[in-house]
Amino acid sequence: MSPTRLLVSSTVLLLSTTLAAHAQDADPKKEAIEYRQSVMKIVGWNFRPMGAMVKGERPFEAKVFAAHAKDLAAVSGVNILAGFPEDTDGKGSKAKPEIWMKWDDFQTKMGTMQRELAKLGDAAAGGDQEAARKQFGAAAKTCKACHDDYKE
Amino acid sequence: MSPTRLLVSSTVLLLSTTLAAHAQDADPKKEAIEYRQSVMKIVGWNFRPMGAMVKGERPFEAKVFAAHAKDLAAVSGVNILAGFPEDTDGKGSKAKPEIWMKWDDFQTKMGTMQRELAKLGDAAAGGDQEAARKQFGAAAKTCKACHDDYKE
Repeated sequence: MSPTRLLVSSTVLLLSTTLAAHAQDADPKKEAIEYRQSVMKIVGWNFRPMGAMVKGERPFEAKVFAAHAKDLAAVSGVNILAGFPEDTDGKGSKAKPEIWMKWDDFQTKMGTMQRELAKLGDAAAGGDQEAARKQFGAAAKTCKACHDDYKE
Repeated sequence: MSPTRLLVSSTVLLLSTTLAAHAQDADPKKEAIEYRQSVMKIVGWNFRPMGAMVKGERPFEAKVFAAHAKDLAAVSGVNILAGFPEDTDGKGSKAKPEIWMKWDDFQTKMGTMQRELAKLGDAAAGGDQEAARKQFGAAAKTCKACHDDYKE
């Protein structure tokens, strides 16, 4: 075993306690649901204050708006579809079975949402408030499109 | 009101039902805890299969490893520290009060972790398995550094 590999192995072994403790009671479907809900939680966490600014419920602060847009762009880069294996509707999830009946459409809509969130990051960073608001609306529309069809 | 702004407002209004329903019972501290736990959930979701490959518990599949590394790099781009406002230890969280007593150190360690996760994305994409394994070890070490000091 090379010194590098030995070093890596020891570190990973040290970390194993945490990972193993978790893996023992892991139910892949439950994990997938929690994973996708985590992604959506991060989206919501960032989306809400931006929505409040767009609706005029709080002052529009370009820097705060851009920081949230940057986080949305970042999290939109993860493989969200990996969190939707078959037979994971119900079980504390609001996902409708239609997701798997119309998988191609769901996949397309999810991809569109991810693209629009990435664009929102760019739009907000650009500093043009009207463009940022407009792109927020476009992104919000892609959230709604999926929720309407695929979320209880 | 410009046509653009009108369009944005209508879309945001349509989305408001979901957002408002959520906002009504929102407790900022609870939200922050859920937000940071969501980030960690996504990290763990990706880290575990990579760890299993590094430890030889499952075959090393470079493409799968790289896909998870890419997701880790993506999620490392969000503002994780925003999920650690003061006085959010306890309450179903494993965060120790030491986080806020030694905030500078915590902040530094979190930044290091985020940088090492971003580097892991690059290392795994590069296709050099030894380099990918080595960087996985380096990233795992930064997780452990924080957990040792700041997580119950």
